[in-house]
Order: sequence, then structure tokens, then C-alpha cells
Amino acid sequence: MTTSTQNLTEQVVASFANAENPRLRQVMQSLVRHLHAFALDVELSMAEWEMAIGFLTKTGHMCDDKRQEFILLSDTLGFSMLVDSINHRSIEGATETTVLGPFYVPPLKVSPSESDISGDAAGTPLHVEARVTAPDGQPLAGAWVDVWHSDDDGYYDVQKPGQVENLRARFISDADGRFSFWSIVPVPYPIPTDGPVGKMLEAVGRHPYRPAHVHFMIGKDGYDTLVTHLFIEDDPYLQSDAVFGVKQQLVVHLTDEAGGTTSSGEVRGAHRKITHSFGLRPIA
Amino acid sequence: MTTSTQNLTEQVVASFANAENPRLRQVMQSLVRHLHAFALDVELSMAEWEMAIGFLTKTGHMCDDKRQEFILLSDTLGFSMLVDSINHRSIEGATETTVLGPFYVPPLKVSPSESDISGDAAGTPLHVEARVTAPDGQPLAGAWVDVWHSDDDGYYDVQKPGQVENLRARFISDADGRFSFWSIVPVPYPIPTDGPVGKMLEAVGRHPYRPAHVHFMIGKDGYDTLVTHLFIEDDPYLQSDAVFGVKQQLVVHLTDEAGGTTSSGEVRGAHRKITHSFGLRPIA
Repeated sequence: MTTSTQNLTEQVVASFANAENPRLRQVMQSLVRHLHAFALDVELSMAEWEMAIGFLTKTGHMCDDKRQEFILLSDTLGFSMLVDSINHRSIEGATETTVLGPFYVPPLKVSPSESDISGDAAGTPLHVEARVTAPDGQPLAGAWVDVWHSDDDGYYDVQKPGQVENLRARFISDADGRFSFWSIVPVPYPIPTDGPVGKMLEAVGRHPYRPAHVHFMIGKDGYDTLVTHLFIEDDPYLQSDAVFGVKQQLVVHLTDEAGGTTSSGEVRGAHRKITHSFGLRPIA
Repeated sequence: MTTSTQNLTEQVVASFANAENPRLRQVMQSLVRHLHAFALDVELSMAEWEMAIGFLTKTGHMCDDKRQEFILLSDTLGFSMLVDSINHRSIEGATETTVLGPFYVPPLKVSPSESDISGDAAGTPLHVEARVTAPDGQPLAGAWVDVWHSDDDGYYDVQKPGQVENLRARFISDADGRFSFWSIVPVPYPIPTDGPVGKMLEAVGRHPYRPAHVHFMIGKDGYDTLVTHLFIEDDPYLQSDAVFGVKQQLVVHLTDEAGGTTSSGEVRGAHRKITHSFGLRPIA
């Protein structure tokens, strides 16, 4: 069939009818329908189409082994959080998920509980005491817990050339499901703004900031691996996270602690503290 | 507002509400709604999202000053033809439009009517005699007419390293709106398949061929510049153009001519001939 405006979308959809993989066929046909509906909805002009081609090309050219501008684009359009929520419907007793982000590095070793992961980073001391449980509240022993967060300037170690690894570690939950560590209180920071996505945010009047947060990835055999953050209460960007990652359940209260001698015999000054329980979701 | 699956799309849409440019706001908000609807429609998995990020990244890395893989992607999803049809609603007496394609080069000089543009290219001789008119059929004198097409192997001159310019030229319509030239009959050819778009076509069981065609771009003050092709009748790919560019009105009949001495005194052997009239659309 030759093309007329009326039947074009159906003609393109039909061109995928012979795909051997039924799932690929379904995804491509739906993509075509929704992309065409978008262009018709806004009556996209030729000049706008050219701008879109140029934007996608620049976004591709910005990607290398250290920078993933298409993930940044997906994040800032709320697409990453949408896919996350589609794949992690919340259940009672299980912690809600949020985006992985681009700064995760699989840890090479396990650190003992009560380790201080701040290294040479300055900032307000933070103590985290947490538990890993099943949805019914039963403690989960032997879960691995990966933790990472930004420094007081808003950068992750991997973003700073020459920086030794810090502000990240792996812990293992004890017989009571507990793990704990010392670090510094993270601060809000902007996503990278020197690429096409940064220009897009500026053009539409959006700021690039993420509210302060600590990343957690927690896994144990028989349970879905949990990828989430804890957000620091009262952050000015909690209502306008550039990547739409905030869920109310993940915003935590920090208590102010006077300090003193810890259970492991160390002397700690005044610090802030997060006490939290993470619920893992059994594999369906 | 913090995120729940229910309000995520509205939250992302609202984030564009402060865009100063109302058109940019409209386009981005519509894009977000349609992209989110797609992900929800197919319940896109995390693995599929990762594949999509990888596909877009490879597509970006394939683009350089000679190759535009995102345009190829737009073409093969029927998106380019859709944008073309949105921006060029057909009117009685005006020739329908189709895609520009990636092989247009603005000509540096004007060739006289009856020129042979085939250069060193072998193939079946072709004679084109055409007219440029207004929608009411009145001849348009002094219109510029750019012509380009592939050779007998399916390649454009710019695709062949070291090839001298051939199979392309600019003509000017005469007082009666006429122009004419000699060339060779083009053949069907595949779009470039050595990139991510070629892999996509293969994965979904689609061939990469375009039916044989001659490109025309025709302009005159006071009229929209016409970008179109003429397709050769009976081509095996007329019903399945890889970029969905075929419109019935643009498929032409070739007559078989015995040859002899032309009006300009040249002797020509047996050849095929296209006789066609192009209608330009007055600027609205």
C-alpha cells in the first residue's frame, strides 16, 4: 500500500507484523503508535523535527564510558522513574524503590559494621543504624548492603579525577538483620548540566538539583534486589527533584545526637543519626 | 509533590509549566504524556529500558558529517513521512511531497535543458520531459529544478569515494514552464544497514530497500519549495518502501521510445521516457 496521511501510522505498524519475536513486535508497534500520536498532537513542524534530530545526535555524542546523557534524558523526563515504578509495584512491608543513578560501582570488599566510610571527606558527621527485614518484619541475616552518596560539595568520588574511593561501601546484615556505619550528611547537588540535557532544563526553566540522599542497594537470595535512596528531610529540593525520584516513604528524619563513647569503644562528637528499617520483597 | 506511580506523569508534565516559550512547553508536555503512555502500554521492563538506552547511544555514535543514523531511524519508523504529511497537506493541483533523504547536495551551477547528467554511469537511457505549473495549470517560468538519483548499482555519487559528481543537476524552467534532461533509469537500493537501524530492521524481519526513484526539489518565489520523488512503476518495493515514502500520485509510467534525432539535433538510441507535470503550491 502506498502512503496517504490517513493510513501512514497503520502502514508503519503493519510493517512490524512479521517480527519473529512477539514481544519486540508489540513494543515497536506501540512505540510507533505513540510517537505518531505525539507528532500529530502537536503538529510538529519540519524545523522542530530538525531540532529533535540535532538534539538526539548531540546527546549521543555526549555519551562515553563515564557519561550517559541518554540516561540523564530518561531521568529528567521522568521516564526512568516510570519504568522503575512499572517494574516494582509497591507491596506492604517492602521498601519502595527509586532510580539507580549513574554513580554506582560494585564494591570489591565487605566493610565491618560501624565502619567510617567518609575517608578524607569533610562534613557533618552522620551515623546510620539500620535493619533489613522481610515484609512481615522478620530480620534478614546475611543480606549484602551497598551504600554510596555524594560529598559535601555534591560530588561522588568517581566524578573527581584522582579521588580515592570514599563515601561508598558494602556491609552484611548480622543475625538480627542489622548493619550500621558512620559517614557525613550528604547535600543537594545538580545533575551534570554541560550537555544537551542541561540545555533542555535551562530552556524550560527547570533547575538541575537533586535533594540530598544516600543510595542503598540491598540483596539476598530469594528476595528482589532493592535499589533505593533515603532522602534527608527538610531538603529544599524534595518537592522538585530533577529526576522525580522522591517518594514520601523514603524521606527520613535525622536526630541530633550528643556523642560520647560508642558501643565499639570509640569516642564520637555531636552528630546526626538516621535509624531506618528496609523491607525486602520475596521473589514472586 | 513526591512521586507515586499514579501521579508521576502529571508531576513531570507540571515541571515544564514554567517554560517561557509556550510552544516548547506544549511540545515537551505532549512528548512526556505520549512517552509515558507507551511505557505503561507495554509495561516496559528494566532490561528493555537498558536496551533502548544502548540502542540510542549506538545510534548517536554512528552519526557523523557523512551519516545521520537518527534520520534513518526517523525514516524507518515512518516519523519523517508523518512530519512531512503534517506540514504539507495536499491541495488540488499541487504535487504531493515526500522525504528529502540524506543525499541532496545544493548544485553550484545551472545545466541547460536536454543535458545528459549520467556522466560515466552505465544503465538504461532515460529521457525526462517535464513542466512546472501553478495549481490551476498555468506554466511557471524561471523555477529552479534540482534533480538527483542513484546509479545502476543503487549508490549516489556522494556515497562513492572519489566519484566525480554525476546523476544530479539544476535546471531552470523555460517560458512555457518546461525543462528536460537525459540520464539513466534508477534502480531500487537498500538504505545503509551497517548501523543500529539496519540491525533493528533485521530483528523485526523488514527489508531495507527503497523502490527506484528520481528526487526533485523545485522552487520559485511565491511558492512553497516542493520536495518530492518520482517512483518508477512496477518496482518490486513500491508496496514496502523501507521509509514509507511512496504516494500513488508519484508513481510514473515509463514509455519505451525508439530513438532517433532529437529536437536539438543529437542522435539517441532506444530509451525510456518520463513525461510529467509538477504543480507548485502558492505560499499561504
